[in-house]
Amino acid sequence: MSFMDKLRAAWRNNRSMVCVGLDPAMEKLPAALRGARHPIFEFNRALIDATRDFVCAYKPQAAYYAGQNADEELAMTMAYLREHCPEIPVILDVKRGDIGSTATMYAKEAFDRYGADAVTVNPYMGFDTLKPFLDHADKGVFILCRNSNPSSGDLQALVADGKMIYEHVAALAATKWNYNGNAGLVVGATYPEELRKVRACCPELPLLVPGVGAQGGDVEAVVHNGADAEGWGLVVNSSRGIIYASAGDDFAAAAGQAAAALRDRINAFRPAGL
Amino acid sequence: MSFMDKLRAAWRNNRSMVCVGLDPAMEKLPAALRGARHPIFEFNRALIDATRDFVCAYKPQAAYYAGQNADEELAMTMAYLREHCPEIPVILDVKRGDIGSTATMYAKEAFDRYGADAVTVNPYMGFDTLKPFLDHADKGVFILCRNSNPSSGDLQALVADGKMIYEHVAALAATKWNYNGNAGLVVGATYPEELRKVRACCPELPLLVPGVGAQGGDVEAVVHNGADAEGWGLVVNSSRGIIYASAGDDFAAAAGQAAAALRDRINAFRPAGL
Repeated sequence: MSFMDKLRAAWRNNRSMVCVGLDPAMEKLPAALRGARHPIFEFNRALIDATRDFVCAYKPQAAYYAGQNADEELAMTMAYLREHCPEIPVILDVKRGDIGSTATMYAKEAFDRYGADAVTVNPYMGFDTLKPFLDHADKGVFILCRNSNPSSGDLQALVADGKMIYEHVAALAATKWNYNGNAGLVVGATYPEELRKVRACCPELPLLVPGVGAQGGDVEAVVHNGADAEGWGLVVNSSRGIIYASAGDDFAAAAGQAAAALRDRINAFRPAGL
Repeated sequence: MSFMDKLRAAWRNNRSMVCVGLDPAMEKLPAALRGARHPIFEFNRALIDATRDFVCAYKPQAAYYAGQNADEELAMTMAYLREHCPEIPVILDVKRGDIGSTATMYAKEAFDRYGADAVTVNPYMGFDTLKPFLDHADKGVFILCRNSNPSSGDLQALVADGKMIYEHVAALAATKWNYNGNAGLVVGATYPEELRKVRACCPELPLLVPGVGAQGGDVEAVVHNGADAEGWGLVVNSSRGIIYASAGDDFAAAAGQAAAALRDRINAFRPAGL
């Protein structure tokens, strides 16, 4: 089953556009887990068990594993997801971008080594650096477009030929780069007007939207400006707002409640009847 | 010793602006190494021993290790470099770029976990995604500017406010982003005219220049357009042209000869008397 089919099914089956960002920092893990042999994996497993009915995707952020020497725990997390919730697609957030032969190695990392259903990629180096990912027709490829961080406009908001750089990316992602029908875009919730423009340019692309939780994005504006014609189309990521909903030993139950609450907030703004 | 000091010393001590890209693909390793317990590390070790007198830097490409499940061999290679040639700086080619808290994790990966002297980073998401790297004043940070691959112009050659996007990056790297004096730029040898413009904009920044070997860049144009006022300033990377100079068991000796030859070709075009 392709990533796109899996995502469409998960939206509808769980009636959710919530994505949980699995970005575990060792120093923030609940005390009860710190003595475990694989504390990061145990944390993720409990979060997955508690949230899987309320989400459309999971998104492990590769940096948290690479920076904490926890590649094995990322592999364990990916294997757990495949085995216990194969119906939920997993987006490995790697933001890679490199020349063709190197990008091919990164595609092997994401798709073969870790078994991800989708990745995030950086378009700064152009089409031939994205192609080794896009060539995997059954995998999703979310291309950075307009990011949620404060200085994302340094380059993305520069204007060339009457359009901002991120609009050029959106236009390419909707056409030339989408030759396999597996492209998506990353657009931050902190820029709702830009989200509206991207949706207008790309009516059919799934949009991965970080920034609704700790970063302060507005859920109503995200759904209003970002949903597709059928009222789906969004993968609204929350990491800290869900995985650290409680710092105590009830972290998993609290994460489940936070994921369900975000699902409901999002659905409250979906067009009636869809 | 900071990265910049180490690089300046290596240029002069080895009279070389050659950087060897340690990008080992398992299927290309010499037959004699394939049965080794750590074939990638053994390959790298032999290459390092054979080339260390002819180079100013080494640049392992992280993707080759991540894609081949060889993180341990990357760590072994980095440790070997620290122990046996501490005078040669090591640039870990990761091309990372992510929001602040995530970039901090990637900086830990490069500088703490692997002990790199410098990294490559992607500027598409703007300043606050580069800052967690630039804050390490003793480390070098090479920012992607104008890349060597065929479609690097998709975004980098768009014109905003009369300047191409890569020129905006160069201008920022020479000023606001260089608050610790540790910024450098990546400019492909395949775009010599752009290299000239970047050098004019950034007289003091070290330029990491891939693309002279398999990708076809012209060494004379690179040195003429890219060297700084003292005739140094370049880190000219060659990967395949050196590490696969011979496919036989003489690969290390052949790599040494190829590195020395590239050093000499570069130096032949350095301004006389420098």
